[in-house]
Amino acid sequence: MSTAVSKTNPGNFFEDFTLGQVLTHATPRTVTEGDRALYGAIYPTRFAVPSSAAFASSVGLNPQPVEDLIAFHVAFGKTVPDISLNAVANLGYAECRFLKPVAPGDTLSTSSEVIGLKQNSNGASGVVYVRSTAVNQHGETVLQWARWVMVHKRDRDAPAPETVLPDLAAVVDPADLVVPRGLSFSNYDLVAAGEPHRWGDYEVGERIDHVDGVTISDAEHMMATRLWQNTAKVHFNTQARPDGHRLVYGGHIISLARALSFNGLANAQLIGAINAGSHVAPAFAGDTVYAWSEVLDKAETPAPGVGAIRLRLVATKDRDETMTLRGEDGKYAPGVLLDLDLWAFIPV
Amino acid sequence: MSTAVSKTNPGNFFEDFTLGQVLTHATPRTVTEGDRALYGAIYPTRFAVPSSAAFASSVGLNPQPVEDLIAFHVAFGKTVPDISLNAVANLGYAECRFLKPVAPGDTLSTSSEVIGLKQNSNGASGVVYVRSTAVNQHGETVLQWARWVMVHKRDRDAPAPETVLPDLAAVVDPADLVVPRGLSFSNYDLVAAGEPHRWGDYEVGERIDHVDGVTISDAEHMMATRLWQNTAKVHFNTQARPDGHRLVYGGHIISLARALSFNGLANAQLIGAINAGSHVAPAFAGDTVYAWSEVLDKAETPAPGVGAIRLRLVATKDRDETMTLRGEDGKYAPGVLLDLDLWAFIPV
Amino acid sequence: MSTAVSKTNPGNFFEDFTLGQVLTHATPRTVTEGDRALYGAIYPTRFAVPSSAAFASSVGLNPQPVEDLIAFHVAFGKTVPDISLNAVANLGYAECRFLKPVAPGDTLSTSSEVIGLKQNSNGASGVVYVRSTAVNQHGETVLQWARWVMVHKRDRDAPAPETVLPDLAAVVDPADLVVPRGLSFSNYDLVAAGEPHRWGDYEVGERIDHVDGVTISDAEHMMATRLWQNTAKVHFNTQARPDGHRLVYGGHIISLARALSFNGLANAQLIGAINAGSHVAPAFAGDTVYAWSEVLDKAETPAPGVGAIRLRLVATKDRDETMTLRGEDGKYAPGVLLDLDLWAFIPV
Repeated sequence: MSTAVSKTNPGNFFEDFTLGQVLTHATPRTVTEGDRALYGAIYPTRFAVPSSAAFASSVGLNPQPVEDLIAFHVAFGKTVPDISLNAVANLGYAECRFLKPVAPGDTLSTSSEVIGLKQNSNGASGVVYVRSTAVNQHGETVLQWARWVMVHKRDRDAPAPETVLPDLAAVVDPADLVVPRGLSFSNYDLVAAGEPHRWGDYEVGERIDHVDGVTISDAEHMMATRLWQNTAKVHFNTQARPDGHRLVYGGHIISLARALSFNGLANAQLIGAINAGSHVAPAFAGDTVYAWSEVLDKAETPAPGVGAIRLRLVATKDRDETMTLRGEDGKYAPGVLLDLDLWAFIPV
Repeated sequence: MSTAVSKTNPGNFFEDFTLGQVLTHATPRTVTEGDRALYGAIYPTRFAVPSSAAFASSVGLNPQPVEDLIAFHVAFGKTVPDISLNAVANLGYAECRFLKPVAPGDTLSTSSEVIGLKQNSNGASGVVYVRSTAVNQHGETVLQWARWVMVHKRDRDAPAPETVLPDLAAVVDPADLVVPRGLSFSNYDLVAAGEPHRWGDYEVGERIDHVDGVTISDAEHMMATRLWQNTAKVHFNTQARPDGHRLVYGGHIISLARALSFNGLANAQLIGAINAGSHVAPAFAGDTVYAWSEVLDKAETPAPGVGAIRLRLVATKDRDETMTLRGEDGKYAPGVLLDLDLWAFIPV
Repeated sequence: MSTAVSKTNPGNFFEDFTLGQVLTHATPRTVTEGDRALYGAIYPTRFAVPSSAAFASSVGLNPQPVEDLIAFHVAFGKTVPDISLNAVANLGYAECRFLKPVAPGDTLSTSSEVIGLKQNSNGASGVVYVRSTAVNQHGETVLQWARWVMVHKRDRDAPAPETVLPDLAAVVDPADLVVPRGLSFSNYDLVAAGEPHRWGDYEVGERIDHVDGVTISDAEHMMATRLWQNTAKVHFNTQARPDGHRLVYGGHIISLARALSFNGLANAQLIGAINAGSHVAPAFAGDTVYAWSEVLDKAETPAPGVGAIRLRLVATKDRDETMTLRGEDGKYAPGVLLDLDLWAFIPV
């Protein structure tokens, strides 16, 4: 007769990862119109492409894709049970490229390759670098990204692996952005999209206060996080943390900030890449989240009428009209929750 | 380098509206089966037409329409950023007619024409009357309504426009109701629909206590309100009101009352028109909402087996078994949240 | 002029039921992809068949069925207004067999036959036994089950019916399980499904601690319960119980426990039957629910690669690593919320 826990997934510990190892993550997941509706119920998104099949078709996207971040969260969620169930911290993202839009009916599967390992000097944990790839039911890659997490060791006496640090780009080269096939902003309807601001209207260095705020509720962030089949206990179980609070999934803050950014960046319709991202501070129910953006760069693309804009998207607890990222000490200003660096496609 | 807020939508102020002006509202929105499911998760609705594709087909509606109020909320939500972002109060509705059922896959767009203006004597605000029209992706009008809102002036010194008050009907003439094409209640299944009461069983003057109550939660009303892309801050942000409460969107109370009215009016399957509506008092999470109806009028329609019934639908905070609308002073009785006057289609 | 409540459904009382009576329940309900998405938002489910259309197709299920418990809850919800609106207690289930998978687009209707009656010795209530049958739009039976409830009498003086107790099986004979047509686990992908454990890896008597816990929120259990059109007041209305709490629908605990059981029973993909079930204690928002399972029996099936496993699925408030069902006194251990006995299909 077997004992408790023997059949449940204990997750991987630092010494379970080896360089070059490929992990095929479980439970492929079919995206549906139900996901689109729930995304719109949980986040105040109004971007015209995922909102309107007619608008999407008018810019060459048929079938109508879901929000890019739905694909991101579904693909990312698959990796949690194998990569980060025993993670101390989610340290960073890089080279996240959106390679093909995802539409209802698409089934996503994710695999990850270990591309770097570094044991911490304390001997109790280490940093694992993986490159994850999500494919659809046709085997086409829809999303690829690198991330690194600090993971506990099961056994402090397990030998340290050779340190290998991957070479990751600080920013995705605009030449490597993949514009969705067929996308054209030549006949883009600015009125339907909600704002008149084009690529040429944004200056590098410009900051945009997105003005609106949303107070987080537990039911909403749990529902979103479950949708992505993210299994991390701290998001759902008040007994999993000493403070008795449910920790909001970092991806919830990403989606909230992206949705709030509509007000001022309504035409930044699609995400081309996430260059980097830091979850600076935890968030909890009752916190009111605001967002501001900084234009970091601009680039051209080969697609008709389509420009690329590089944005720093910052989420804060409470509104900071000064839009201060860091204090004089170089540390993140109080209230900063998220510092995300991304490329978006916008009509020129 | 630009400064904060410059690219965000400040909304229109009273002096921005001119008579005859047409506003084309942003972000067309495609309705999906996900909306139907969420509506059923948030409201205790059981009307057979939107619940069952087989039932809808049996009364001549194929494809199966979504709840009429989904169309109403989506169409209405589009107008908020342009019409009522700076509103002091939503004063009333009139002549709201449902002209064509909306089914999953339909994309709705809304525009509004300014049909009346009247500056208030205080010089700080004025009343704007608009007639809004929602069309589907084929350009067919699905919904049309008038409403009037009190809007702040940006500048008290801006000149007052000429006062023009539109001529709005107190009640939609039953001859102007549009029965959905193909609708027939000739083979209506009363057992499947849930109640035996037909058009002939209701008397003018009759009141029906719908008995059931629902206690509001913040997550639910926020999810509904976001689904309709309603951007009014007070519904989502505890910092947007001095009392720290999220104000429940008035349309949430309309949907809640309509769903509760199933118990006693299960056969009032479709809404033909909203004649008038007042949001009498604000509602907040924790309030328990009940509903009662009064039969105001009855009319025939040209469609087979289809009658029209005019109902006053009243939502109350806490149950009022006396079903009192107004006190002896003529003011609304304490607890009344909503006073809605509508025409519905019901089998004769 | 009529008075309050006259047109609303008062529900049936004990003396309204007669042996052999057939009740056709109202509001057929079409299942959609929106239901699947909401189920995945509310419950942490990851079973590969309902999660992935590609996986479902690979085991012979096309169209992709929704979670078996969606069919159960929808079918069950229909019976509430006629059977248990005036119930004192839901006493038990038996002989619940899943006869055909339900997919989006299917419309479910339910009817019930009274198969037993027994007035309580107190003369104020009695037990009603019904066998309920849910059919789809083609008239095919998708689910059938017996349950018995204690129902109030309207009038204590109403005569007692003859006592008839139905003969109900303690366990569904494995020979009576209906494997979904076309189901084959011959090419089952254990990696995609998430765990390596097959039928042969489970021993009768084995217990599995599913480890994870979920803290209940009111918005989530209300949304689930409304989805199933369950109208029992106590789930939605804080004024319906003296303690001011919303009682969690027992089916919510069933779904929560089933979803949690993925961790250790990921390959128990489909439910074949529910043999028995007891809602041992009420649950409320704030409770953290865990689950454990005990393997009660195993059986073969005629379908390729498909085995049957009989499981006791237990939900508890707070985690019980000892997995104790009953104390030495034979009573359920403190914290036990649900004791469910079911057959599932799992690859051999």
